[in-house]
Amino acid sequence: MDLFFSPLACSLASRISSYEAGIHLNFIEVDPVTKRTRDGRNYLEFSPLGLVPALRLDDGFLLTGNAAILEYFAASSLRANLAPLSTPDLAKLHQWLFIVGTELHKVMFVPLFDKKIPEGTQTHARDFVFASLDFLDAQLTGRQFLLDRFTTADAYLCSILNWAAPTRIDLSPWPSLKAYHERLLERPSVSKAMAEEEALYEAEVMRYRAA
Amino acid sequence: MDLFFSPLACSLASRISSYEAGIHLNFIEVDPVTKRTRDGRNYLEFSPLGLVPALRLDDGFLLTGNAAILEYFAASSLRANLAPLSTPDLAKLHQWLFIVGTELHKVMFVPLFDKKIPEGTQTHARDFVFASLDFLDAQLTGRQFLLDRFTTADAYLCSILNWAAPTRIDLSPWPSLKAYHERLLERPSVSKAMAEEEALYEAEVMRYRAA
Repeated sequence: MDLFFSPLACSLASRISSYEAGIHLNFIEVDPVTKRTRDGRNYLEFSPLGLVPALRLDDGFLLTGNAAILEYFAASSLRANLAPLSTPDLAKLHQWLFIVGTELHKVMFVPLFDKKIPEGTQTHARDFVFASLDFLDAQLTGRQFLLDRFTTADAYLCSILNWAAPTRIDLSPWPSLKAYHERLLERPSVSKAMAEEEALYEAEVMRYRAA
Repeated sequence: MDLFFSPLACSLASRISSYEAGIHLNFIEVDPVTKRTRDGRNYLEFSPLGLVPALRLDDGFLLTGNAAILEYFAASSLRANLAPLSTPDLAKLHQWLFIVGTELHKVMFVPLFDKKIPEGTQTHARDFVFASLDFLDAQLTGRQFLLDRFTTADAYLCSILNWAAPTRIDLSPWPSLKAYHERLLERPSVSKAMAEEEALYEAEVMRYRAA
């Protein structure tokens, strides 16, 4: 299956989850600025929102949306135990995927990364969502993972917490969250995915500089 | 089960889905400004993000996040057929729930409703997400629902499209989306839920005026 991604974007969570599940993917890099794939195609022509990750399913459907892809990996590879099976526990996983995807990823970090956004909006975004960091920190106090074991929600949250440093958000006021992030970075699937995508990210930066 | 909601908020999708599924809920109204329940409790004390909907599960866990609650209803009441059963089709439902929840709800409408947001941000939000409306319009052209029948994603999208009028977004440039919204408003579960929440919303406005 083809997985469209950009280095160190939220698609990192799909890479981590695929390594956890032992799912083989054909990774296709998308330039986040030009929206062209590394093999020269215009990504917007077949993925009109331009979002990564996107996964080409066997029936040809291009599945968009990080949480949807993470759920798909978990459901396709039950042995990997990346999601709970019971309805209430699965609902709790969906909660964390949704909160990370909405409150953290979209409400907090999208404005922080957006260079064209009007002045003042970024400060507003920070104020607005520190409550989400409090909430996650409380959940992670005394726990190793968001649920009782590693799930796709941890892959997603870890990938998003990577953006704290480049947006100058110091996680020290949320010590459980900070320690959780540091622990996850040591996890084999995560450190492998990070090393690969960091190298690709550096290559991307070099290409921009050369252009 | 207790369902915390605010009139005409995105929690409307939970009400619609519960009617579709025949799930009996105890609806508890939360004032979106004071964050107090109508029975006088401070909602933030037990729901720190203050978001609606939230569903109290049988084990006491307060489930937050619209998509998580919608998935829970679908999984708890399979007879109602509110979600597909196959893994790839369920992934497509998750895609729509996630795109409606992120691109439309959080990226587009949260800034449009936020009276404290810096000037210019709202225009920026509009420009940024008209692509999402294009995408949804294309999906709905020649179709009655986002998938091949009514699902929780339609309940969510319908509830969010209700916000176009109060934020002065004219849906005419997206005719399939506009017609879809109008059709859904005629659906019995939707019209019942809308009539009930419109009355509660008017009562809320009257309370603000009296205060």
